[in-house]
Amino acid sequence: METNVVIETLLSHRSIRKFKNKALTEDQVRLLVESAQAASTSSFTQSYSIIGIDDPDIKKQLRKIAYDSDYVEHNGYFFVFVADQYRNKVIGEEYRKDTSALDTTQRLIVAFGDASFAAQNLAVAAESMGLGICYIGSIQNDINKTAEILQLPEDVYPIFGMAVGYPDQDPEKKPRLPLDIVFHRNHYNPKPSSNSLKAYDQEVARYYQTRSGGTREETWTGQIAGGLEMPYRKALKPFLEKQRMGLR
Amino acid sequence: METNVVIETLLSHRSIRKFKNKALTEDQVRLLVESAQAASTSSFTQSYSIIGIDDPDIKKQLRKIAYDSDYVEHNGYFFVFVADQYRNKVIGEEYRKDTSALDTTQRLIVAFGDASFAAQNLAVAAESMGLGICYIGSIQNDINKTAEILQLPEDVYPIFGMAVGYPDQDPEKKPRLPLDIVFHRNHYNPKPSSNSLKAYDQEVARYYQTRSGGTREETWTGQIAGGLEMPYRKALKPFLEKQRMGLR
Repeated sequence: METNVVIETLLSHRSIRKFKNKALTEDQVRLLVESAQAASTSSFTQSYSIIGIDDPDIKKQLRKIAYDSDYVEHNGYFFVFVADQYRNKVIGEEYRKDTSALDTTQRLIVAFGDASFAAQNLAVAAESMGLGICYIGSIQNDINKTAEILQLPEDVYPIFGMAVGYPDQDPEKKPRLPLDIVFHRNHYNPKPSSNSLKAYDQEVARYYQTRSGGTREETWTGQIAGGLEMPYRKALKPFLEKQRMGLR
Repeated sequence: METNVVIETLLSHRSIRKFKNKALTEDQVRLLVESAQAASTSSFTQSYSIIGIDDPDIKKQLRKIAYDSDYVEHNGYFFVFVADQYRNKVIGEEYRKDTSALDTTQRLIVAFGDASFAAQNLAVAAESMGLGICYIGSIQNDINKTAEILQLPEDVYPIFGMAVGYPDQDPEKKPRLPLDIVFHRNHYNPKPSSNSLKAYDQEVARYYQTRSGGTREETWTGQIAGGLEMPYRKALKPFLEKQRMGLR
C-alpha cells in the first residue's frame, strides 16, 4: 500500500523527552493551535481549551507535580489541554438557560474527546514541523495543585500537558501491538492470538534492551500486569465531583 | 507562517456525511489502523481497540441507534473506537495479579485518551488519502444495545464510531472559535472577549445561511445555550458502572 507524507509523519511518531534550548516562535505556537482547532468537535460544542505555558516559573511548578521530569520545564513550549464546560456554561447563563446538563457523563465524555482530538492534531502538526512532543498525563498526579496553578474554574479538567520543542535525542520508535490484537472484525474478539502476543513481548524486550544499553529486561505483558497492582491518582474522582463533571 | 502538506491536511478538515458507493480496500483499512496505532498511548498501556465494521447488517443496526443517519450504513467502511481495559485485565489475570486498579477513574481517563488519539490519527490518515470522515458519537444513544451488537465484554466502552469513505459532497469548512477564545496564556482566562464571540456568532450565522440555502438562522452561542437544556444519553453513567469503569 502506497503511503504519503502525512501518513509517514504519523508512522514516524516517537515521544521526545529531551529538547534543545530553543523556544518556539509565536507564529509556530499560533499555527499549532489553529491546527488543533481544526479537529472534529462533538456537536460543535468545542468543549476544550488549550493553555499555553511559557512562564518558566509555572513550568517549574508543573514539573514538580509531573514526576520532576526535566522536559516539563525545559522544552520549546508547553501546552495544557483542558476539558472545558465553563465557557459554555457562561454562555448558557447569559441566555438565562438551565445549564444543569453540563454535569452529565455525556458532556464529560464529549469534552474529553474534544480536548484529545485537538491535542492529537497539535502533536501531528508539531511533528510535521520537525518538532518533537511528549504527552504529560502526570500533571494529574496532584490535580488540585495543577488546577490551582492554572487558575481553573469549576467545569474544567486538566487532562494532560504536552511538551513541544526541537528534539535533542533520536529515540527508536516504540513497537506497537500487532494489528490483529488491536483490530477486531465486526465484533469484539475477546481471545486474541497468544502467539501474536508472545512475539510482541519478544519485540518489546528487544526494544528495552536496546534503549537501556542491555540493563532493562521487560516484556509488554509483564509491564502491563505489574502496573495493574498499583492504583494511583486517587484524587481524580473527587476532583471531577468538585468540578461538577460526570456526576450523572 | 509557512505551512506544510500535513498542516494543510489538518486545516482542511470538514466532516463528510455522504459517501460514494465504493468500499475501502483491505490495504487501505490496514494502513489506517496502523496509522491509528502509531499515536501516543498513556504509559504504553494501549488501552483501546478498534472494531472494523463491513457487515451491512451490523452497520444497519448501528444506524438505527445513531439517529437513523444514512452515512452510518452507507460509507466506504465503518470503525468503532472502544476504550479497552479488558485485554489488559486478561493479561493481569494470566500473571495472577490483582487487577482491581482497572476500575479507577485514572484508568478510565487513560483509556478514553488512548482511543481518541488513535481515532484522530486515523481521521487524519484517511483525509490524507482523499477520503472523508465523520465521527459518530451517537452510537452511544443506546449504549447497551451498541455493546450487545458488538459483543463487548466488561471493561470496554464504545466511545464513538467513524464513517469513512469517498466523499460525495463538498461542504464548506465549519468555522472554529477565534483562537483567543480557546487559547489561554499561562492561566485559564475566565472572561474571553465578548467582541470576539460576537464576531464569531456572525460568522457561524453566515455559515448556516449558506449551508441551508438561507433557511437556517442560528448563532453559535444560541446553539450552545439551547443544547444545555437537554440532558440526554442518561444511560452512560450506569453503563460505565456496569462495565466496572471509573468507579473510584
